Amino acid sequence: MRSFRRELSFHIPSRRAFVNITPQVQACLDESGIREGLLLVNAMHITASVFINDDESGLHRDYDRWLETLAPHEPVEQYEHNRTGEDNADAHLKRQVMGREVVIAVTAGKLDFGPWEQIFYGEFDGRRKKRVLVKVIGE
Amino acid sequence: MRSFRRELSFHIPSRRAFVNITPQVQACLDESGIREGLLLVNAMHITASVFINDDESGLHRDYDRWLETLAPHEPVEQYEHNRTGEDNADAHLKRQVMGREVVIAVTAGKLDFGPWEQIFYGEFDGRRKKRVLVKVIGE
Amino acid sequence: MRSFRRELSFHIPSRRAFVNITPQVQACLDESGIREGLLLVNAMHITASVFINDDESGLHRDYDRWLETLAPHEPVEQYEHNRTGEDNADAHLKRQVMGREVVIAVTAGKLDFGPWEQIFYGEFDGRRKKRVLVKVIGE
Repeated sequence: MRSFRRELSFHIPSRRAFVNITPQVQACLDESGIREGLLLVNAMHITASVFINDDESGLHRDYDRWLETLAPHEPVEQYEHNRTGEDNADAHLKRQVMGREVVIAVTAGKLDFGPWEQIFYGEFDGRRKKRVLVKVIGE
Repeated sequence: MRSFRRELSFHIPSRRAFVNITPQVQACLDESGIREGLLLVNAMHITASVFINDDESGLHRDYDRWLETLAPHEPVEQYEHNRTGEDNADAHLKRQVMGREVVIAVTAGKLDFGPWEQIFYGEFDGRRKKRVLVKVIGE
Repeated sequence: MRSFRRELSFHIPSRRAFVNITPQVQACLDESGIREGLLLVNAMHITASVFINDDESGLHRDYDRWLETLAPHEPVEQYEHNRTGEDNADAHLKRQVMGREVVIAVTAGKLDFGPWEQIFYGEFDGRRKKRVLVKVIGE
């Protein structure tokens, strides 16, 4: 069994954004040389997500609006977590809806995807450096 | 390390449904011959889910009603994604709540489950052919 | 390839609670002797979660209040599932938001975590014995 590890770095200038990281993840897989196995991609921070969905900008604005409805940023005083001096409690909630990680099958050296699957980094508390972990195991 | 890959196909006649796919996934595992490892089951489409919960029809109707409350199908104009000619933006949202994939421990050739765990395919935009991927790695 | 399996047991005296299980999961990993691979932690019951977030008690109270807003326990009659004699339909819904499982990279014998990542058992229908599965594969 072989394994491969790589970190991706992000510094999103806005509070929230969705970034397509599929090419970077495929590049990690290429570099690993692993042909059959499983690939894990996870946010290393607890106010961010990694998820798989469609690369369509209208949908991303729908996600953003919807998550604001489910877990609004303001008023920040509505969250106990923000009494610690943070203002990002909503980001911890939004990340649970969108998920921390994806696990992807590796087949014949490729991300084994359906026709529209793309991997996204979801930032909910940006304007600082954040990291995503890519780990591949297989042969 | 060994690996095994299989696709399951679905053509759900309604827009939304939940289908118990546990027997089909166990059949894949049997065919793989893998006794110890990890098994990934994921929707290959971004308006569908694979998740683990209870095989109880009342609960499934509760899920359906609840997801409609969180992300209603109508009015379809409320979603920017639907300006692309689609009417399935709600399905992309519902799928994030229910999840894309499950990873299951394989122990002694079986799905290593608690007493009530069953695997479901969750369709949120049916009436077309869709696929689920089963990938097993181990020994 | 090596594999390791262990169950953790919980008997939460209240209906709902969040328990930091990171030390127990790291102890499983230590015992496994696996240095590179993937580690799965999943709830074996369908009214409980395993998730990764922050060990901050205010945030946990925010999660609890938020989940009650999204899927209230009462009135129990609002859920068809509860006509089976159960009163825990809301727990099945809450668990979908928070997730069943996490998959964690194992690197140099450690849980490969960002600075604030901690693993939690989320109980939504306690006052009974429940189990969590830890499965590690690698080398």
